[in-house]
Amino acid sequence: MNFDADDATIAIRDQVEAFFQREILPRAHDWHEEMAAPDRYEASFMAGLKAKAFEQGLWNMALPRLTDDEPGTCLSNLQFAYVGEILGRLSWASEVFNCHAPDVPNMEILQMFATPEQKETYLRPLLRGESRSSFAMTEPDVASSDATNIATRIDINGEKLVINGRKWFASGAGNPNCKFIIVVGLSDPDAQRGKGHSMVIVPKNTPGLTVVRNIPVMHHVDRVSPHTELLFEDVTVPVENLLGAPGEGFLMGQARLGPARVHHCMRAIGRCEVMLRLMLERARSRTTFGKNIREYANFQDAISESRMELEQARLLVQRTAWLLDRDGNKAVRKDVSIIKIAVARAYYNIANRGVQVFGAMGLTSEAPFASALAQARAFRIYDGPDEVHSRTIFRLEERESLADKRSYSDQYLH
Amino acid sequence: MNFDADDATIAIRDQVEAFFQREILPRAHDWHEEMAAPDRYEASFMAGLKAKAFEQGLWNMALPRLTDDEPGTCLSNLQFAYVGEILGRLSWASEVFNCHAPDVPNMEILQMFATPEQKETYLRPLLRGESRSSFAMTEPDVASSDATNIATRIDINGEKLVINGRKWFASGAGNPNCKFIIVVGLSDPDAQRGKGHSMVIVPKNTPGLTVVRNIPVMHHVDRVSPHTELLFEDVTVPVENLLGAPGEGFLMGQARLGPARVHHCMRAIGRCEVMLRLMLERARSRTTFGKNIREYANFQDAISESRMELEQARLLVQRTAWLLDRDGNKAVRKDVSIIKIAVARAYYNIANRGVQVFGAMGLTSEAPFASALAQARAFRIYDGPDEVHSRTIFRLEERESLADKRSYSDQYLH
Amino acid sequence: MNFDADDATIAIRDQVEAFFQREILPRAHDWHEEMAAPDRYEASFMAGLKAKAFEQGLWNMALPRLTDDEPGTCLSNLQFAYVGEILGRLSWASEVFNCHAPDVPNMEILQMFATPEQKETYLRPLLRGESRSSFAMTEPDVASSDATNIATRIDINGEKLVINGRKWFASGAGNPNCKFIIVVGLSDPDAQRGKGHSMVIVPKNTPGLTVVRNIPVMHHVDRVSPHTELLFEDVTVPVENLLGAPGEGFLMGQARLGPARVHHCMRAIGRCEVMLRLMLERARSRTTFGKNIREYANFQDAISESRMELEQARLLVQRTAWLLDRDGNKAVRKDVSIIKIAVARAYYNIANRGVQVFGAMGLTSEAPFASALAQARAFRIYDGPDEVHSRTIFRLEERESLADKRSYSDQYLH
Amino acid sequence: MNFDADDATIAIRDQVEAFFQREILPRAHDWHEEMAAPDRYEASFMAGLKAKAFEQGLWNMALPRLTDDEPGTCLSNLQFAYVGEILGRLSWASEVFNCHAPDVPNMEILQMFATPEQKETYLRPLLRGESRSSFAMTEPDVASSDATNIATRIDINGEKLVINGRKWFASGAGNPNCKFIIVVGLSDPDAQRGKGHSMVIVPKNTPGLTVVRNIPVMHHVDRVSPHTELLFEDVTVPVENLLGAPGEGFLMGQARLGPARVHHCMRAIGRCEVMLRLMLERARSRTTFGKNIREYANFQDAISESRMELEQARLLVQRTAWLLDRDGNKAVRKDVSIIKIAVARAYYNIANRGVQVFGAMGLTSEAPFASALAQARAFRIYDGPDEVHSRTIFRLEERESLADKRSYSDQYLH
Repeated sequence: MNFDADDATIAIRDQVEAFFQREILPRAHDWHEEMAAPDRYEASFMAGLKAKAFEQGLWNMALPRLTDDEPGTCLSNLQFAYVGEILGRLSWASEVFNCHAPDVPNMEILQMFATPEQKETYLRPLLRGESRSSFAMTEPDVASSDATNIATRIDINGEKLVINGRKWFASGAGNPNCKFIIVVGLSDPDAQRGKGHSMVIVPKNTPGLTVVRNIPVMHHVDRVSPHTELLFEDVTVPVENLLGAPGEGFLMGQARLGPARVHHCMRAIGRCEVMLRLMLERARSRTTFGKNIREYANFQDAISESRMELEQARLLVQRTAWLLDRDGNKAVRKDVSIIKIAVARAYYNIANRGVQVFGAMGLTSEAPFASALAQARAFRIYDGPDEVHSRTIFRLEERESLADKRSYSDQYLH
Repeated sequence: MNFDADDATIAIRDQVEAFFQREILPRAHDWHEEMAAPDRYEASFMAGLKAKAFEQGLWNMALPRLTDDEPGTCLSNLQFAYVGEILGRLSWASEVFNCHAPDVPNMEILQMFATPEQKETYLRPLLRGESRSSFAMTEPDVASSDATNIATRIDINGEKLVINGRKWFASGAGNPNCKFIIVVGLSDPDAQRGKGHSMVIVPKNTPGLTVVRNIPVMHHVDRVSPHTELLFEDVTVPVENLLGAPGEGFLMGQARLGPARVHHCMRAIGRCEVMLRLMLERARSRTTFGKNIREYANFQDAISESRMELEQARLLVQRTAWLLDRDGNKAVRKDVSIIKIAVARAYYNIANRGVQVFGAMGLTSEAPFASALAQARAFRIYDGPDEVHSRTIFRLEERESLADKRSYSDQYLH
Repeated sequence: MNFDADDATIAIRDQVEAFFQREILPRAHDWHEEMAAPDRYEASFMAGLKAKAFEQGLWNMALPRLTDDEPGTCLSNLQFAYVGEILGRLSWASEVFNCHAPDVPNMEILQMFATPEQKETYLRPLLRGESRSSFAMTEPDVASSDATNIATRIDINGEKLVINGRKWFASGAGNPNCKFIIVVGLSDPDAQRGKGHSMVIVPKNTPGLTVVRNIPVMHHVDRVSPHTELLFEDVTVPVENLLGAPGEGFLMGQARLGPARVHHCMRAIGRCEVMLRLMLERARSRTTFGKNIREYANFQDAISESRMELEQARLLVQRTAWLLDRDGNKAVRKDVSIIKIAVARAYYNIANRGVQVFGAMGLTSEAPFASALAQARAFRIYDGPDEVHSRTIFRLEERESLADKRSYSDQYLH
Repeated sequence: MNFDADDATIAIRDQVEAFFQREILPRAHDWHEEMAAPDRYEASFMAGLKAKAFEQGLWNMALPRLTDDEPGTCLSNLQFAYVGEILGRLSWASEVFNCHAPDVPNMEILQMFATPEQKETYLRPLLRGESRSSFAMTEPDVASSDATNIATRIDINGEKLVINGRKWFASGAGNPNCKFIIVVGLSDPDAQRGKGHSMVIVPKNTPGLTVVRNIPVMHHVDRVSPHTELLFEDVTVPVENLLGAPGEGFLMGQARLGPARVHHCMRAIGRCEVMLRLMLERARSRTTFGKNIREYANFQDAISESRMELEQARLLVQRTAWLLDRDGNKAVRKDVSIIKIAVARAYYNIANRGVQVFGAMGLTSEAPFASALAQARAFRIYDGPDEVHSRTIFRLEERESLADKRSYSDQYLH
């Protein structure tokens, strides 16, 4: 075992850190101010920063399948884990490096399943950061945590696909740069469970597709990838827009989620580190009832609990990334479900403690805690609610227990 | 002991319930729609509803000191506890009955400490629902949870009071109907701890007073009583605007908070009851992995945990109201601190469970959970953070333990 | 509403308190020492104390159905709630007043369902404190939390009942004074769910009945009512020993549990009050890292959390007792389930905090925390595990929600 | 990074696993039965098993400083982490391999600080498993979590050391094989904080030393290393028995604790794995209310929560072991404090869930949960209570934050 990052990882991490400190962090206040205006989804300086990052090859680092003819630097999942922490400190930093959701998982799915024509039309501009995309799965009318409930219809009608239904929480669809949406829908209602859904690429300007609104999540509209409601009324695209084979929507969806979840986790951990430091600085600067806040044992416990959660979660995220690299997505389902729950929880708890330490200010947008709390809360639902991941962990445990021929009861009960 | 409400209480509760069902609840959707516009602080139908409530005497029910010549119906704290639950179901219902914060505690403080002239000018319009008011204590630059930190200066300068400082979370100040602000400030920096602060009434249109902004709390601007930032630059008012005696700012502040906290608690409990029902209805309507959500034991536990928290908290709130009526504010400090923490926690937990049960929808403004979560989170900070109330409970316990001459250690340790 | 105890309640409480302080508490050390010997189940001074309590009429106070010709003082459930708190401070105090489990619920069931002959033979000596009894329901071989799983056979064989099976956690059976056991068994395997079980009175000296052992619970053998394992091999008793009608075992069992649970709760709360005081005294006497332990905010939180839990739980227990008195057992099932969970939890949490505050000593038998923790842990399983009570609360909530014709979703969702 | 064990580690782990399965596990029932007798501290078959383990070189594996001329196999801390998990499954398995506390940390301290004569007399027999030892630090009369409170006097009196005081929780002292005790005491009351304590080796048969009793911890006497109370009355030993230099008692004590805590953690994790499997097997075998227990979502959550806690804790323990190997004890203080708290908590939670899943049986000694719960509870106090470790984590965080010249507040607050 070796818990140290290798030299290549350290080198890229240091490079990203330097870029972050030099180019990104000094613009944090500007970004905050520009976004005070409603309906802004990109800061004035974003294009310039992206160009710089592209130039330096700090680009597409979240795509472990990046080929030589695709722009950017290919990192392993583990390597990106280190980079992702840095990017996570500010909500908009990932986009500078073209490492933001949902474009990253969309690029991954296109890398894996798109035809050469689809790649040329849809993947290429994404890889160059010239356009944005969205992914539409969740529906308001069904319990989407069980994906087999998805009811939006994709009717395969000869050479055409006709889509009808309502989606929401289609991340990024409301961003003005979004050019297309990958839609999951039911193409064969008679197929057996999990085999009747397909994916289709729908250009955003297709007639019949209405962008209803960007949904405030916990009263907050995400400015990088707003969560959008979409209405599909007889939206018709050529059959060439089918992504992968009909009926394989789920299989593809699952392939999409492993690394994406690891990325989310690393970003959240980076954000948590910032919050931890802010809490310590705040406590040193404030006094109540004759004592500096840092002297209160319950404040001290808030810090140590946060560190405990963070340190344990980070290590497991790193191992999960390492296993993803070595064994592929399917082999690490249990670990992915564990980190999904554990990191969302640590993120929520730390944001929550930060709100309390900062008091009134903690509730405002002047400090990052309120939006972290909102985001962490949503994180417990996005990409599968805790309940579903908990069920997955149980089922895999149960399977392992059943595979073990020994009876523990015979030996350890008396 | 008798745990049943008496007939008079039941009568007024039934009357308010009927009014709520007939006049208020049917307008819930309208209110929601009207408030979709930014900067709306009063629904078009509010004045009409207020007139009806006034006419029926369902008015000023949260003021246990209401005199015969003041409009409305005087209820005890305990009686209002029953009414408050109903009002709490919708964020804007209290105002219909002139029972909303911060006007209620402001009216209380004016009832207790204002001069006849102050009453005529400031209290009378509030009692009739013709104007609004604000209370400004919290400051961005100090840890306001220890009120002795309050640093805004009130300089007593012969016949004039000059105010300088910055306040935020001045509830209601940003409401267009707000006419004056009760400001807590430091008038004598050399006085002993807790004796140097005073209260002053500042008309909102006084020169030098700037309404900086309404602060989004957890990204959400309260439409009934927005939390406002205020800047005082040489704001000058006549010495007649001093409320109570100089140096008694704290004493008056504490008098203000007892019943107000009980009211907040009852409203929160009413909101929780609504959320509990919504969760049950939702679970019955949704299915995952072949089972109705109501069949999942962890959902069932979410309901029963909520009921347990709610039932215990409500009963203690009712007893606290009863003790307030009988023994006055000071005698029930421990109980007030307990319910402050316990209800905020129950409120937060139930909102949190509701978000999870509703999934994506739980994060939106279509369901009441996201705003309940935001409000409950803030509730852990408003009116004294949990940490301060916990300290109060401890200190009172310690005092009782010290007053007891018996040594438990001698008898119960071996 | 009136949250004060009435004069009669205060009078009896004061009388019991005086007796406790004068006669019982001074013997706490003696009891502890005598019980250091294994297999002691009654202190040398117990008979003397019982005689005194009997003489003063402080007897059978936990039996709200006590008739005029039965010895002792009949209290309501609410009145006993006050008395029970005092008795709960020491594990053996209840027996002094003949108010201990399982004899109290056994006396109740005999009062309700026994024939005159059964009353003469079995109830009368119990009421006079001349003998002890046991109740045998739980079985090692089935999940007894679902009582329909109970498999011990009671074969009705003409004039004889033949019992076969294994029981454990038969409380009190291992006490040398125990004279008979009330056994729940399956008499009609073909009956519908909940209708096939009966109760039978089995004298402890019946051939075929083996007292296997007193089971250490969390390594601790209860000295008042040890939890005993019993083996029934063709144990034969006359049909006259049937208690109530065949097939009504469950109905009778449920009748037995309401008040008994309330009593347990009150005793636990009394024990908690002792622990709270001990924690405060301990903290004052110890110093770490230059600070008295009482100055640590996390210690202070431990106290205030304990008080919050305790105060809320107690009030709900009192209301439950009041409702039991007014409406009977069945009407308060939800409240009984709530207090069962809530009090066990508060008890556990407070014992747990006490262990930590006392450090090494908290783990020993010199302080009451270790046995309180063990007892509280068991309390989460006895009389129905938390999971079953949680399910009950949910089901009753669900029922109320379904009975309400209004749709909350229509009105509160947008 | 590489999260896989290397070949040498796998080899030793497999060898220990095979030995455990073949020689130890089949005797689990025998051990349980033999220990049903009071005052048994060694099973009849222990000597035989030890001889076999010694023969195979599976000996002293917990001593990373083991030299070539000392018997056994030297493993790194990380390697032993793998082995420790296996040993932890049964409370008595570590002793088979001479890897049990407190002899392991005592051997470590002797390796580091003993004179050649002390090594010959005291260390050599321990290394060969021919004798046992104890460590006496905690005192009943002071808050020992702050070790500077330790008050037992070691008077250096020319050629003699005279010891007076009372110790408890001297682990292993009550084991009949225990030959000597390492005692921490105050030798220079005037020295500055942390410089006045020394360590002395006291043979158990020294006059004036009384073994008062083995203390039941949570009612349970540990059979491998009972926690013993000792009275020192003018206990006199030659000055040669001083261990290390006078005044260095603390320094030596801290050196002792790093690896020992890691070992405890790994053993606890091994025990947890057994409990997890038992819970799964139990759930499959029991049914309530028409459903197999494994179908209840709250049971499933109990499993997945346990796995989450366990997986995260284990990984951090492994990294801590790795860091101990690489950087030494002092460099990993924060990680050691984190795992101390985190593992004790996971252990407690998992034992607690197991008790609930097993119901009545979970409370008995037939299943391992009750003793695991007791042990885990004590673990939160042994080797520094949670509060002290939490304080340590905070202080190290604070130090890192202060060392960082950047102001997070300037950059991340607006």
